[in-house]
Amino acid sequence: MTRISDPHFAERVRASFALQHAMSLIRATLPLIEHGRAEIHLPHWSGVEQQHGFVHGGVVGMIADSAGGYAAFTLMPADASVLTVEYKINMLAPAAGDLLIATGEVLKPGRSLSIVRADVFAVQGDRRTRVAAMQQTLMVMHGVADEKI
Amino acid sequence: MTRISDPHFAERVRASFALQHAMSLIRATLPLIEHGRAEIHLPHWSGVEQQHGFVHGGVVGMIADSAGGYAAFTLMPADASVLTVEYKINMLAPAAGDLLIATGEVLKPGRSLSIVRADVFAVQGDRRTRVAAMQQTLMVMHGVADEKI
Amino acid sequence: MTRISDPHFAERVRASFALQHAMSLIRATLPLIEHGRAEIHLPHWSGVEQQHGFVHGGVVGMIADSAGGYAAFTLMPADASVLTVEYKINMLAPAAGDLLIATGEVLKPGRSLSIVRADVFAVQGDRRTRVAAMQQTLMVMHGVADEKI
Amino acid sequence: MTRISDPHFAERVRASFALQHAMSLIRATLPLIEHGRAEIHLPHWSGVEQQHGFVHGGVVGMIADSAGGYAAFTLMPADASVLTVEYKINMLAPAAGDLLIATGEVLKPGRSLSIVRADVFAVQGDRRTRVAAMQQTLMVMHGVADEKI
Repeated sequence: MTRISDPHFAERVRASFALQHAMSLIRATLPLIEHGRAEIHLPHWSGVEQQHGFVHGGVVGMIADSAGGYAAFTLMPADASVLTVEYKINMLAPAAGDLLIATGEVLKPGRSLSIVRADVFAVQGDRRTRVAAMQQTLMVMHGVADEKI
Repeated sequence: MTRISDPHFAERVRASFALQHAMSLIRATLPLIEHGRAEIHLPHWSGVEQQHGFVHGGVVGMIADSAGGYAAFTLMPADASVLTVEYKINMLAPAAGDLLIATGEVLKPGRSLSIVRADVFAVQGDRRTRVAAMQQTLMVMHGVADEKI
Repeated sequence: MTRISDPHFAERVRASFALQHAMSLIRATLPLIEHGRAEIHLPHWSGVEQQHGFVHGGVVGMIADSAGGYAAFTLMPADASVLTVEYKINMLAPAAGDLLIATGEVLKPGRSLSIVRADVFAVQGDRRTRVAAMQQTLMVMHGVADEKI
Repeated sequence: MTRISDPHFAERVRASFALQHAMSLIRATLPLIEHGRAEIHLPHWSGVEQQHGFVHGGVVGMIADSAGGYAAFTLMPADASVLTVEYKINMLAPAAGDLLIATGEVLKPGRSLSIVRADVFAVQGDRRTRVAAMQQTLMVMHGVADEKI
């Protein structure tokens, strides 16, 4: 998609994710980090449910936002950090299933702003259903490595 | 804003909120329920933080979504439930402070769709800073009381 | 994507488009109508420019909204009409070029709501640049054929 | 709302608006420019209609986007120009009435990004109905006066 501005992007993303208490609170993991792409997984467990036993829409938004943010972060220089400017999310179906997978993919990387699309899928056995679709704007903060903010 | 279609709206909202495990996981409470308006409070604690010690943007989105959704729910008939169709949120400032307050206010209630604006403020002593602004679309599901879905 | 609920969908879409004065005002055309997909073309001419000689962002929004709306409309039954509930659009690059192409593609058709993604590309000779990305929610109005509203 | 960074902001906004062919194409005017606020008016005429005789949603989006953009522009320094990053708009009611009024109001001005809320009202005699609600992100481009881009 674009040239690699930091060859150690995966380590950088992993280190940032490890510092997010909110991600461990909901039991989310980050098993896939590619150049311009990231995936967050979330097992379905009772702590993240809403009143009908599905995963809470806010939690679906959290993992989509993180997948998108880290997708953008993989394309940023080593001395930069990433900030969510805004996002818009459509809920397409109840977040049922054993596992949720949020995928983020950079649509347009930029020097100061990056635009990303993210999707959340519910997985139940062989079936994979899209449950949410997000479009997101992120800001590159140059000269402020992520762990130093 | 509109006539009261269910005089017991506050009890209905409180009962629905109590069933949301995800809200208790993040330690959110719902101290204010008015006709067309709702407020969610969230203490700042380590479990909801992101990598820089602020409250995670996804958690900010969760409480804004809930405040907006319950604001819309107060205007719905007793036999209806509420579903988030989509929302868009701008992050305006880091969610610092001891307490976050999310306020939802119905802009346009409707028979099938309701449009809501929600804001999140960070409170530190006397200071109240707007940290997020949301615009949201919710769906009324008639004939399906919230706890029966 | 989904079964065809009206075999005459293309005629229906074309008839609706022909009634939109605003589309002829900006000189937009609708050269492609497929099941779940539509394309609007807009030549670059002085009347649709903003202050820097690019196509006005609002006009870019208009053709994206229309491409998305008609994509959704192709999947609706013959006695239904389509209404934009809301959309979100990111401007990715200045709308330069001789021609703009807006493409709409249904992400999730629904009985009452349809979710669509639309993109706008600027074409200059062989080059095609994405200038906008939209995510959109549309409402199906059953029992109200489009020309009868 | 914030200190005045350019005392001649109204002239600057008016000059920029005068250069937008697309605004004169749809017959929009800019009768109100205040610090942090702007209003666009649009008479209802046949050229801006959609298939049912209401003002086209895309045109509603155009005037909301412009009102918001110019509201933000009033707070920017003299050597800056304004760019729409993205917006989200909800259509609340058909744009009927003799006149549409779009109002933009800055929620949070910033050095690089400004967040704005805009609303569109349809006016018919004494009645004023909100027909659209927008939330918008704009970018400040420093060192590039608007007419020089």
